Amino acid sequence: MSELQKFEETFEKLREELTNYVSDELRDAKLWLDQVLQYNISLGKKFRGLAVSQSFCLLASDEELIKENIELSRIVGWCIELLQANALIIDDVMDQSVTRREKPCWYRVPKVGLMAINDGLLLGSFAFEILRKHCSSHPMYYKILDLFMDTLQNTIYGQCLDYLTKPKGSKPDFSLFTTSRHAKIVKWKTSFYTFDLPVRTAMYLAKITDEKVHEKAKAILLRIGHLFQVQDDYLDCYGDCQVTGKIGTDIEDGKCSWLAVEAFKRLNNEQKKIFTENYGINNENSVKAIKDIYNEFDLQNLFKKYEKQEYCEICEMIKEFEKTSKDVDVKVFLNLLDKIYRREK
Amino acid sequence: MSELQKFEETFEKLREELTNYVSDELRDAKLWLDQVLQYNISLGKKFRGLAVSQSFCLLASDEELIKENIELSRIVGWCIELLQANALIIDDVMDQSVTRREKPCWYRVPKVGLMAINDGLLLGSFAFEILRKHCSSHPMYYKILDLFMDTLQNTIYGQCLDYLTKPKGSKPDFSLFTTSRHAKIVKWKTSFYTFDLPVRTAMYLAKITDEKVHEKAKAILLRIGHLFQVQDDYLDCYGDCQVTGKIGTDIEDGKCSWLAVEAFKRLNNEQKKIFTENYGINNENSVKAIKDIYNEFDLQNLFKKYEKQEYCEICEMIKEFEKTSKDVDVKVFLNLLDKIYRREK
Repeated sequence: MSELQKFEETFEKLREELTNYVSDELRDAKLWLDQVLQYNISLGKKFRGLAVSQSFCLLASDEELIKENIELSRIVGWCIELLQANALIIDDVMDQSVTRREKPCWYRVPKVGLMAINDGLLLGSFAFEILRKHCSSHPMYYKILDLFMDTLQNTIYGQCLDYLTKPKGSKPDFSLFTTSRHAKIVKWKTSFYTFDLPVRTAMYLAKITDEKVHEKAKAILLRIGHLFQVQDDYLDCYGDCQVTGKIGTDIEDGKCSWLAVEAFKRLNNEQKKIFTENYGINNENSVKAIKDIYNEFDLQNLFKKYEKQEYCEICEMIKEFEKTSKDVDVKVFLNLLDKIYRREK
Repeated sequence: MSELQKFEETFEKLREELTNYVSDELRDAKLWLDQVLQYNISLGKKFRGLAVSQSFCLLASDEELIKENIELSRIVGWCIELLQANALIIDDVMDQSVTRREKPCWYRVPKVGLMAINDGLLLGSFAFEILRKHCSSHPMYYKILDLFMDTLQNTIYGQCLDYLTKPKGSKPDFSLFTTSRHAKIVKWKTSFYTFDLPVRTAMYLAKITDEKVHEKAKAILLRIGHLFQVQDDYLDCYGDCQVTGKIGTDIEDGKCSWLAVEAFKRLNNEQKKIFTENYGINNENSVKAIKDIYNEFDLQNLFKKYEKQEYCEICEMIKEFEKTSKDVDVKVFLNLLDKIYRREK
């Protein structure tokens, strides 16, 4: 059985726990939560959740590497998947998205509507309920809880930085289309919860508690997260939608993406006029005008070079880490990096 | 200076802390958060927040009753106010409300829109940030944190129970208009965070840790919360809008309110037809038909009797509590109860 299959089995157990409380005062709410779970959790790559158990297996001492602890790492992985589902449901409402993983977004299901917001929060609080129930006797429980809560907050701040670059109902604020702003948005909105949270949670589960080691690991993980999001920005425009499974809308949405920032740096006055007039406009000609500019600057090639360079620099960081932190198997970083390097979806 | 004025001074200090981090990477997000605070926090009775410091002053030993600790209780009170503001911003989006405290709801401010949802979450996570910053060296910090997190979850479950009685786009589910369902909604959605959270947080701040005492206090506080919400339901229909400052819409919204449940119990077949056809319909004649039924059953008088009876029973509970838990000044309960008894707003 693959780790993904085992991971999915764990989910079924968590769902059973939820719905077995039939005499509970909250019965109706829990049955509803089960519907929310079934609609919103079934699909997806489960990249973040799997990263916990896979990292744990690499990090734990032989003594710690027993069945119960591996299962616990899967359960904690599910907590991260639940937070992710929480964020996606709410993002879809805020962005007024239409589909998610080839189904209508949850808020667009007729019986749901804007109550989807509360359903998102329900998934998030279910994550903390599971964490407490299964993990509170772990000596590192409060470290893990603090990390979860920090991460949640970081993501909310990141979301805020993101939408301030494209305020509701107005043009994007092009003065913020800079490498440093883009890096900040990516760090706070994506990297913490996609890479830092799963791996450092696994470190705590494996009882690696040295805060200096955590700080160094965080630096690497945020850097991997940055590369991951730059790829995402690239694939949004240049990915094969048959492979990625989604049609990019960053240009129409006026997103502060890596491509937009790189283009913006290179614009002459005439191009700047075209760019600012067309970026963030939802019509075919506008999108084409932007893509023409991207192609003029050969951003596809620029990206490939950037991806390779980042890969090499992150490998260097990992080598440095290995020298000083001998208790941590650096495969946790290398596996993640190899999983994402040159990804097409 | 009144306690309310001191409480408001504490808020200004917290705001200054927030905006003083000018070199911070998150500067823009924090300046935005300050705008969210200024718009959404300035008004309101601050009933919940004040309850923390007022309870703390009654509960703390002479030794504990020093300036720093009282200030800490105000800070923690603000955390509850922030959670409250978080909930209101998001509720207004879900209910598509128009005004809140005589101003347009935050999501209706043009530059905000649906990003109000993230702004609500921002306030919530700011609450936990403050709690950690100011309270994490308190020996009861993790007890308080757990209580906050439980309360947040309870409120989300309560919200869910509430909207399942009136699902989006359909008639209310009248089979759920029962005393027991109403009591459940009130308990989970309102009582925990309005009464249980502020007072038991104050107990932890005063280092009252005996879980049995907490359980008994909780029972009283939830009962007070129940009375509070029944009053709210009553005032929604029978309150003087000049005094309450709001125009009730429970009938139009199809809410499972105390009045609706009491009426529903008493309906004959003919009345039931009128009730189910008109309850939850937003038009004047429908509302009048429902109010006529309420008046036919003399629900105003029924409420007055119920309020008095509940008051007496809660007083009995408090007397029982006093016999067994001598370390806790029961004025914390009596003051709250007297504050709400026969309230007109």
